[in-house]
Amino acid sequence: MISNYINRRVSAADLILKVNFTSDGLVPAVVQEMESGTVLMMAWMNRESLARTIESGRTWFWSRSRKELWAKGDTSGDIQLVHDIALDCDGDTVLIEVEQQGKGACHTGNYTCFYTGVLREG
Amino acid sequence: MISNYINRRVSAADLILKVNFTSDGLVPAVVQEMESGTVLMMAWMNRESLARTIESGRTWFWSRSRKELWAKGDTSGDIQLVHDIALDCDGDTVLIEVEQQGKGACHTGNYTCFYTGVLREG
Repeated sequence: MISNYINRRVSAADLILKVNFTSDGLVPAVVQEMESGTVLMMAWMNRESLARTIESGRTWFWSRSRKELWAKGDTSGDIQLVHDIALDCDGDTVLIEVEQQGKGACHTGNYTCFYTGVLREG
Repeated sequence: MISNYINRRVSAADLILKVNFTSDGLVPAVVQEMESGTVLMMAWMNRESLARTIESGRTWFWSRSRKELWAKGDTSGDIQLVHDIALDCDGDTVLIEVEQQGKGACHTGNYTCFYTGVLREG
């Protein structure tokens, strides 16, 4: 849980300093369900949404189309509780490991946003 | 396996037409190990690299820094065999499910590129 993170005295600022944000100040965030390993969604974070994610223990993103911060589940109730956050080797992608609440991650009603595929029916 | 995909008569062009590429002609590709569920890496694809991935059954990406196509494992031998490709609900991210060969996905020698984290040692 994110509380362990706080206990380890790694501040939000420390993590955020390691991220290589794009020139637009964004980083792609891949959200994975911890228990099942299911990749639930990909969305974008800026510094503020990453800080809010760390501090609140639930996922916050940046909407590029609406140009605003949004908290996952504020409308649907299907929030994501953060268990861990990992950076990739070059610091330009974050992997958020979560416990998905409610009906799932996708606004379409599917559990994961990756429900259409080549071999899957969608 | 990708051969099943071909057998289902879904062409590379059909898949590529569904992808919402950025204005730069790119789409983020999340690569996941099928058996373990481990998220191995995130890299970018353009139409050509996605087409080559589908046609060859191994992952191809677009290097934004070198501005060239590259095939995962050409240098290291650690190629990724493609089992499935999924699009997310708005078509702007692809999830590539692979069988990772060799020592892993990361050029650092780690199995996954997401080896540093908040709770993980890295």
